Amino acid sequence: MNTLEERKALIEATAQRMGKEIHTESPAKATEPRTALQHESPKLVSLEEAIRRTGLRDGMTISFHHHFRGGDKVINMVVAKLAEMGFKDLHLASSSLIDVHEPLIEHIKNGVITRISTSGLRGELAKAISSGIMQEPVVFRSHGTRGAAIANGDIHIDVAFIGASSADPMGNSCGYSRSENAKSICGSLGYALPDAQHADKVVILTDDLVPYPNHPASISENLVDYVVEVESVGDSSKIASGAIRDTKNPRDILLAQQAARVIINSGYFRDGFSIQTGSGGASLAAVKFIREEMLHQGIKASFALGGITAHMVKMHEEGLIGRLVDVQSFDKVAAESLKNDPMHQEVSANEYASADEAGSATHLLDIVILSALEVDVNFNVNVLVGSDGVIRGAIGGHPDTAADSALSIIVCPLLRGRIPCVVDEVTTLITPGSSVDVVVTEYGIAVNPRRPELAERLEAAGLKVVDIHALAQRARRVIGNPAPLPFGDKVVGVVLDRQGRVQDVIKSIG
Amino acid sequence: MNTLEERKALIEATAQRMGKEIHTESPAKATEPRTALQHESPKLVSLEEAIRRTGLRDGMTISFHHHFRGGDKVINMVVAKLAEMGFKDLHLASSSLIDVHEPLIEHIKNGVITRISTSGLRGELAKAISSGIMQEPVVFRSHGTRGAAIANGDIHIDVAFIGASSADPMGNSCGYSRSENAKSICGSLGYALPDAQHADKVVILTDDLVPYPNHPASISENLVDYVVEVESVGDSSKIASGAIRDTKNPRDILLAQQAARVIINSGYFRDGFSIQTGSGGASLAAVKFIREEMLHQGIKASFALGGITAHMVKMHEEGLIGRLVDVQSFDKVAAESLKNDPMHQEVSANEYASADEAGSATHLLDIVILSALEVDVNFNVNVLVGSDGVIRGAIGGHPDTAADSALSIIVCPLLRGRIPCVVDEVTTLITPGSSVDVVVTEYGIAVNPRRPELAERLEAAGLKVVDIHALAQRARRVIGNPAPLPFGDKVVGVVLDRQGRVQDVIKSIG
Repeated sequence: MNTLEERKALIEATAQRMGKEIHTESPAKATEPRTALQHESPKLVSLEEAIRRTGLRDGMTISFHHHFRGGDKVINMVVAKLAEMGFKDLHLASSSLIDVHEPLIEHIKNGVITRISTSGLRGELAKAISSGIMQEPVVFRSHGTRGAAIANGDIHIDVAFIGASSADPMGNSCGYSRSENAKSICGSLGYALPDAQHADKVVILTDDLVPYPNHPASISENLVDYVVEVESVGDSSKIASGAIRDTKNPRDILLAQQAARVIINSGYFRDGFSIQTGSGGASLAAVKFIREEMLHQGIKASFALGGITAHMVKMHEEGLIGRLVDVQSFDKVAAESLKNDPMHQEVSANEYASADEAGSATHLLDIVILSALEVDVNFNVNVLVGSDGVIRGAIGGHPDTAADSALSIIVCPLLRGRIPCVVDEVTTLITPGSSVDVVVTEYGIAVNPRRPELAERLEAAGLKVVDIHALAQRARRVIGNPAPLPFGDKVVGVVLDRQGRVQDVIKSIG
Repeated sequence: MNTLEERKALIEATAQRMGKEIHTESPAKATEPRTALQHESPKLVSLEEAIRRTGLRDGMTISFHHHFRGGDKVINMVVAKLAEMGFKDLHLASSSLIDVHEPLIEHIKNGVITRISTSGLRGELAKAISSGIMQEPVVFRSHGTRGAAIANGDIHIDVAFIGASSADPMGNSCGYSRSENAKSICGSLGYALPDAQHADKVVILTDDLVPYPNHPASISENLVDYVVEVESVGDSSKIASGAIRDTKNPRDILLAQQAARVIINSGYFRDGFSIQTGSGGASLAAVKFIREEMLHQGIKASFALGGITAHMVKMHEEGLIGRLVDVQSFDKVAAESLKNDPMHQEVSANEYASADEAGSATHLLDIVILSALEVDVNFNVNVLVGSDGVIRGAIGGHPDTAADSALSIIVCPLLRGRIPCVVDEVTTLITPGSSVDVVVTEYGIAVNPRRPELAERLEAAGLKVVDIHALAQRARRVIGNPAPLPFGDKVVGVVLDRQGRVQDVIKSIG
């Protein structure tokens, strides 16, 4: 054996050659029982302290998710705290914004928030922004495009604030809780996962701090910098509010039946098919009709994608759908299923719909049913801006699923009250007509001329296939020619396409 | 509404101001049924093609995991292919290397592999390397240190080759399969997860290509570049070979009993405690005695960590252990449990034991039972190099768990045949004595003088606490003074500590 000196010299020479330091002594060994650490950690601080420690400065980008939809409490809470702390000129990058985020109007007026990136805007906030209260236009991206932008650096998040229904003091967190003290549940945290992976700093806010280890977790401790315990991150009873509801409207049920017939006769309704439905009443109702036909023909789906609903969960539990691939749980039944069923799997916005990933789920999608505010004679779709020119919707996964699926079906009535839904030109271009295959209305089914084989199959099945110009004409006959919208000169919104290019702009109004 | 020209001009102006391109047209919409894509993808290529497409060049770093232990077939297969393709001067960074990797000797001699990073070496490969067949010393790191090195760039992986028991054509993959064609199972892919996350290119090799989506998956499609279907990635019957076995050795059972008594009387045996056991026969047997006492006292553990065994699974299923935190499944029972039980959770090497992460599981660990080849009078431990100077072991998580836990217990016999295990100075320093609390031998229990309160508690419980010098003396009395080892001058191995510093060197022998 070497002498101690020889050994030391050899270690030194080796370290020098490798460009490494030499071991001197190890950090002191802790001896406290770890049961205490399961409930405490250096990451566990107040919201104000977390904000301070992240190093957030004026001009930086903060991000949020909207999985609690109408029940979200995190965005208003955090932005109020940031305002109180005197921050200015922040860029708010949320997966979406809705009615409940009306308090942001004041923070915009006070200069706390000067830029917004989002998938959508609704309610008073949307009206105020449409009227021109912001200097900088809001940047709208689809869910897949937002995920890709966060991954490729187009959106650089300085601090992500992520509401979670449970977290342990180290940051293992998710959209549900297994503890007796559970206060909320939102299910999938899919839209927050790119933020957690790519943000410089990640702050978890939770209303149920549970002992380590909070396994299984959606977000791992190694992505989390701070954990903040709060009274409430969201009201779960409001997840299924807004766009998501079971329809009893006879017109919606008719539309749903027609959409189901399109699917069944499209050539894509075969064993192992995959499907996504939007959050509109008709597209949700269509699922029920498809289920009946699946039972009748003995056909099973490989997976259902996207916003997962109670209907999908039921079919999965019946064995009709192999896997649920869930970027957003659309109701509490879906959220509970995600919690309890390993075959109901959470995916990130990127795994869901990134155009940059060959393996994102939309690329494997056969059929998608989507809704629309407007569709025009070139099959272009608008789901963001009302026919009055005011922002009132969200891009969501619309362009992602329409483009990547084999069969995209838009379900919309010809008219909504006095508002025509099939028009000559959409107010705002969200999903290009090249991505849209079929438009189902109560007055007939229009098939994109790019898909003659589809039109043939549907006609052969006895469906009423019509020219989309005839539908627009019919709407015009009832309503008359719309007056031009009184747009102002200011650009209040910019719509990016899936490649991150500028696709359309939204002008101020009202 | 604007005229078309106005709108175009506004879009152009906005794009310019944002530094973005303008939407022209969308990529062509695909129309093929996606059921085909569930079985095919552009990522699915032959091994040779995958290697070619990764852009691998001479001098680069390739990585592997050893979850199949003695049954691994991936390392030999890939390196043989690389040799056939004419690659030279590669750095092989594996989570460990064992007997089955003997064919690497030829690839080292032929210059295909010129550098190795690993946690351990066994068998003929270890002997050959100890004898000095490599120009560059092998760099040894613990599992936590390897994970941290991959995350912080100390190890830059150009191409990771990851064996998986199932994968879909997009790359969603894991260490088990739910299909009827399952050929292998290894359970957790914990050591491969840092590679998947940080390597420039990731190639999945699988012996069960399943339809998309292979959910739940350990490795997401968005981390995977290529998927290669192979006959076999590993022989699962050999996972529990080598170090892992149920002991029938009466001395091991005595040691296990003593270790269990140490734990029970240590002050850390309380409701909510956490525990890890090494892969030695005695430490595995100790679990059985601890279980009895848990039942007796009505104590439950919050989690068991590390290499998970059938014993741990049984206790978890009995409700005695809340969560299983699994970086490596030590037998098929554990692997099956990981597949079927969401409360049995896979973690990455970093989530397991990174010194750089406050929230890594070792930091939350109360008690660890570990084995040793040698322990010296300063409580330093060697688990890598035999007393004959030849490499014959692995660092594993030894220094990680010893340092971070509240109570680290080394279980080893005083003598193994004619080889003393308690010595004056370890042949190679793996786990510094400052991290070691208790040494259990069949001739008494030595407590680190840094922990007088522990010694007191054990003595009060009637355990035979002895001075570690007395143990070393006793071994010496039986065996005599060992002759100095006939080391050569060449440095064949370098041991890094948890901070990535050079802690010891291993010299050539034999």
